[in-house]
Amino acid sequence: MIKVGIIGSTGYAGGELVRILMNHKEVEIKWFGSRSYVDQKYYDVYRNFFEIVDDKCLDDNITELVEQVDVVFTATPQGYLAGILTEEHLQKAKFVDLSADYRIKDVATYEKWYGIEHKSPQFIEEAVYGLCEINREDVKGARLVANPGCYTTCSILTCYPLVKEGLIDVDTLIIDAKSGTSGAGRGAKLPNLYCEVNENIKAYGVASHRHTPEIEEQLGYAGNCQVMLNFTPHLVPMNRGILATAYAKLKVQADGSLPTEQMLRDAYNKYFAEEKFVRVLDKGICPETKWVEGSNYVDVNFVLDERTGRVIMMGAIDNLVKGAAGQAVQNMNLMFGFAEDEGLNLIPMFP
Amino acid sequence: MIKVGIIGSTGYAGGELVRILMNHKEVEIKWFGSRSYVDQKYYDVYRNFFEIVDDKCLDDNITELVEQVDVVFTATPQGYLAGILTEEHLQKAKFVDLSADYRIKDVATYEKWYGIEHKSPQFIEEAVYGLCEINREDVKGARLVANPGCYTTCSILTCYPLVKEGLIDVDTLIIDAKSGTSGAGRGAKLPNLYCEVNENIKAYGVASHRHTPEIEEQLGYAGNCQVMLNFTPHLVPMNRGILATAYAKLKVQADGSLPTEQMLRDAYNKYFAEEKFVRVLDKGICPETKWVEGSNYVDVNFVLDERTGRVIMMGAIDNLVKGAAGQAVQNMNLMFGFAEDEGLNLIPMFP
Amino acid sequence: MIKVGIIGSTGYAGGELVRILMNHKEVEIKWFGSRSYVDQKYYDVYRNFFEIVDDKCLDDNITELVEQVDVVFTATPQGYLAGILTEEHLQKAKFVDLSADYRIKDVATYEKWYGIEHKSPQFIEEAVYGLCEINREDVKGARLVANPGCYTTCSILTCYPLVKEGLIDVDTLIIDAKSGTSGAGRGAKLPNLYCEVNENIKAYGVASHRHTPEIEEQLGYAGNCQVMLNFTPHLVPMNRGILATAYAKLKVQADGSLPTEQMLRDAYNKYFAEEKFVRVLDKGICPETKWVEGSNYVDVNFVLDERTGRVIMMGAIDNLVKGAAGQAVQNMNLMFGFAEDEGLNLIPMFP
Amino acid sequence: MIKVGIIGSTGYAGGELVRILMNHKEVEIKWFGSRSYVDQKYYDVYRNFFEIVDDKCLDDNITELVEQVDVVFTATPQGYLAGILTEEHLQKAKFVDLSADYRIKDVATYEKWYGIEHKSPQFIEEAVYGLCEINREDVKGARLVANPGCYTTCSILTCYPLVKEGLIDVDTLIIDAKSGTSGAGRGAKLPNLYCEVNENIKAYGVASHRHTPEIEEQLGYAGNCQVMLNFTPHLVPMNRGILATAYAKLKVQADGSLPTEQMLRDAYNKYFAEEKFVRVLDKGICPETKWVEGSNYVDVNFVLDERTGRVIMMGAIDNLVKGAAGQAVQNMNLMFGFAEDEGLNLIPMFP
Repeated sequence: MIKVGIIGSTGYAGGELVRILMNHKEVEIKWFGSRSYVDQKYYDVYRNFFEIVDDKCLDDNITELVEQVDVVFTATPQGYLAGILTEEHLQKAKFVDLSADYRIKDVATYEKWYGIEHKSPQFIEEAVYGLCEINREDVKGARLVANPGCYTTCSILTCYPLVKEGLIDVDTLIIDAKSGTSGAGRGAKLPNLYCEVNENIKAYGVASHRHTPEIEEQLGYAGNCQVMLNFTPHLVPMNRGILATAYAKLKVQADGSLPTEQMLRDAYNKYFAEEKFVRVLDKGICPETKWVEGSNYVDVNFVLDERTGRVIMMGAIDNLVKGAAGQAVQNMNLMFGFAEDEGLNLIPMFP
Repeated sequence: MIKVGIIGSTGYAGGELVRILMNHKEVEIKWFGSRSYVDQKYYDVYRNFFEIVDDKCLDDNITELVEQVDVVFTATPQGYLAGILTEEHLQKAKFVDLSADYRIKDVATYEKWYGIEHKSPQFIEEAVYGLCEINREDVKGARLVANPGCYTTCSILTCYPLVKEGLIDVDTLIIDAKSGTSGAGRGAKLPNLYCEVNENIKAYGVASHRHTPEIEEQLGYAGNCQVMLNFTPHLVPMNRGILATAYAKLKVQADGSLPTEQMLRDAYNKYFAEEKFVRVLDKGICPETKWVEGSNYVDVNFVLDERTGRVIMMGAIDNLVKGAAGQAVQNMNLMFGFAEDEGLNLIPMFP
Repeated sequence: MIKVGIIGSTGYAGGELVRILMNHKEVEIKWFGSRSYVDQKYYDVYRNFFEIVDDKCLDDNITELVEQVDVVFTATPQGYLAGILTEEHLQKAKFVDLSADYRIKDVATYEKWYGIEHKSPQFIEEAVYGLCEINREDVKGARLVANPGCYTTCSILTCYPLVKEGLIDVDTLIIDAKSGTSGAGRGAKLPNLYCEVNENIKAYGVASHRHTPEIEEQLGYAGNCQVMLNFTPHLVPMNRGILATAYAKLKVQADGSLPTEQMLRDAYNKYFAEEKFVRVLDKGICPETKWVEGSNYVDVNFVLDERTGRVIMMGAIDNLVKGAAGQAVQNMNLMFGFAEDEGLNLIPMFP
Repeated sequence: MIKVGIIGSTGYAGGELVRILMNHKEVEIKWFGSRSYVDQKYYDVYRNFFEIVDDKCLDDNITELVEQVDVVFTATPQGYLAGILTEEHLQKAKFVDLSADYRIKDVATYEKWYGIEHKSPQFIEEAVYGLCEINREDVKGARLVANPGCYTTCSILTCYPLVKEGLIDVDTLIIDAKSGTSGAGRGAKLPNLYCEVNENIKAYGVASHRHTPEIEEQLGYAGNCQVMLNFTPHLVPMNRGILATAYAKLKVQADGSLPTEQMLRDAYNKYFAEEKFVRVLDKGICPETKWVEGSNYVDVNFVLDERTGRVIMMGAIDNLVKGAAGQAVQNMNLMFGFAEDEGLNLIPMFP
């Protein structure tokens, strides 16, 4: 039984961490951090936890926190952890950071897309990008895991096999993603009001969304090349779920032929057949966010369009689970040698 | 480890039974019954179960079924179980019936409100009304449990303490209930289409909804009197959840005084303080369906309006869990001596 | 062609006023008031008006405003108009106030329920309660109209005929109302975020909602008696619409009999058969908010429950139209002698 | 005043036609055709029309119909009109066909994508593709107008200026579209049930949706070249609205340079600045379906991504108005010499 602390436990991702960890056999949550609700009962912030969690919210105090816990989850704004993390903290506790602070290896890229100075670049090299299915072994030994973004988790896993196997031309890759509104956080902002989101769909952050360089970097590692793509997020009137629809031209193979449907399917199976949390759907079945809601699953599939020579790749996740809290717990499980799916045997809820 | 069979496993309540039972430590589902999808993979009907359930759907065959399992759940239309159940079946397996067939003790009342003949009235007396918090001891010894309706579970538990303690005048009782659309089932009917339900609210079954006599009977037992009330259901544009808002005049007590707020709160605590699945909210907090979604909880509270001499009682459940599958599993747990909450430690999902 | 000014034109009710008035043949909007968006293009606040409205938002300046326009609509917080209105203003322009400032004749009642001091009680007597169907003749001659609240419009019209005709016992009257989220306004508040409202229903303001005394006062005039009732509003996951479900015991008539279904229907027809904007639905049809969305209609109906001796009355409106802007325009039409339905021939939008 | 008949008046597009035509000054609806609801009151099918439309639904009888009306709208399944239309009908009435029967000039392409035989190919040549902004002059003289599909209207208008001006490489064009659920029609099918659509998003018809060849044909005319693109529709949990997000590489111009942002904007303005129903949004503003809901507007805009050399084009419509009934009325207005916007001055409803 290890002890866990959460900084930022009252955001939507923080709440989901609590939901998952309360049913995790190997952990005990010792610290419900929340600057906004200091000294208030956690269940007064999230009434689903009434009679389940009795703790009060605590102010930020990382020095004190690392004394009390074995692992710290930071579900905090960009720049927060980078601004306070020290070697001493890392020697006392492991960290799973749900922000973007340590996801991008190139500091300049981070600073350009996020518009803030990185305050502790010395830890970037050490940080492991916590996309478990790709970096499992590295995560196991990590002190500091950069938990991937929600859009990025979905986008990368959707395209990974075909990029990795060199079956698509990455220069033609376009990712059109659609997200539920919980991805926008719990801040009281006019664009997130019910009446503004309901009965509406829009693109936002076109050609400028911060998850773009993260996707590019990771797919670049996969393809062993530089990737520059278009990523367009959309806001959808639903609470949870991300669907990524990706497009790319098939890549002419060494023998001059184009990849076949079977080659594409083999690639998906090669990387995902053994992965519990990635489900490669049967041919002809398109992923739907509802079928993964509340769970840590990623559902992926593709359609080969011989007419245009393109493949359409699709993936669906629950942005708060595999896109945030679930993956963070999966990372923690790896870091501490627990069963990778402990606490994560969440069956999607339908309807 | 007991063996379980489900008849009607591809309705919404059936799907929820599967979701709960797959994480239940003491059971194995042996029979996924579904007349509509015979020989089809269960996961082709509910893709949330892809790579989780590999069984095919089976046609109805109760004779064969009771040979194979210890308990049968029937999530079937009214009249189905009553039409086939025999003493022999009951000797071979226990039954939890999610339909209304054995809920109402008076056959004439059943036949009047449901408009069908009851084919096996001989089992009505034996059947235990499976509202666990009220009839726990009887459920433990039962062979046949009539699992309460969704509206009725919510309505009865919302009002029970004040009726039982004689603190309200039951002749003035009015229950105005609001339900998500999953309560209407998975049948392809025009009124349940997305575009007909979304951005809409309406009452239906006014003064004629079949859950009315069930509520009246159970509250009559509680109050030791005859109850005749108005119950009005409404269809709300959401998937899950029932909210009951109930109104009644305070009842003048023996000493001529009216009950105080504290007396009302004491009544709720008397019956529910020790109940894991019933949460009496703090004063001033109104139940919201979202705070119980996906869980077996019932959240209840009340407001005493001294101005009008009425108390407004409120309760919220997830209609598919405490209102159907969750309660069915809770009943099964009692019937087989499992921990009452086994499989039901479902933390509400928010948002 | 008259000139119109709107103070508070960037709230949801203000936006709806603009939508309606832009297609009104007899008016021109001269003043788009909005303290929050001074000097910004109105279409930057509400992009539905792009290329339709080219004006900028103006700061509050009632002295200047009354010089420029014939009628002022105030879609402002409670207390705003009461705090600035003078006899001089009323001599220069007519006022339709969408706030509650002049709705309640008894100052003490207003101050108690609203918790603020009334700054210009001298105009209360003069103000006409602008429920057109009830007070049409008074509205025609008014300088100052108190536009009814959204819940109150729906509640009063739903019950009016039976109260007026003495067919129900007003002491037993209970109104359970359900509203879409636009009724909560466009303020950026956490409870109104998409993820908090979606997939959720709750009661709020139980036994304390400010529309209660307004309903009581108006139904009291109708019944020529004092009315004290329970009114419970609920928040529903939809943008627009209010549904009121009202319950009352039938009243024993002078001859000792109870009213018949026909007597009830006659009462509705007596008051509403000639009313364009009130539609008494056919027997057996329950009002649904979707069927009036975007229009100025009120759909009403009732069910007589002989079993309990109660009548269930139901009414549906679009809270932003008949519940706010539409009725305000209807009042303006009466005040200026225009056709009462000018600008209001809005056919409900379905789906 | 002309006389209008509608075949298929009880589908969602048919209902929207009635909504628009009832407020059209130059027409009278004489024929409410509906095979499914023969002899039933139209308002019993769509209760928004209660006390507005008093007609009954009529069975199909095109021979009789063309005797009675000046124009026939067919909002019918594919193949219906093609199966019954004769030269004699066309001599007696004009036709606006909302199905796909006469949209595609190449019969083989139609038969391949729609999987049915075309029964009256002799009218295809004559039929005018009724995208008013592109084919206005041809529509004016037409007897038979093929009203464009919903996805196609949105997709074509979104991309038209850049294709027409040769500013993008059409071989790289990808259109990712998202639609509300009314596009699926009013048929009682399981996938369109509220609980299946709500809280969900999915792609469908990937690489096989029937609107693909229609988009390709029209953009081919614009670009004077053959177009073969990927079009992927998605189902979004909302009633109305289509958003198209289109991607293409900028095309190197004759002088070897790439188009600039200003050149792209100039192209949009060249074709749309004078178009009432197409709004080119200000730079930086992305179209949202909510801002056009209930209206005949198309909102378009683009983002130039210099990093990738691509332009992201976006467009939003109400699928039932500009995507169906509104455009049909716009076509009728042109065909009969009415003001093009008569009946279509519908201000988008927000929220």
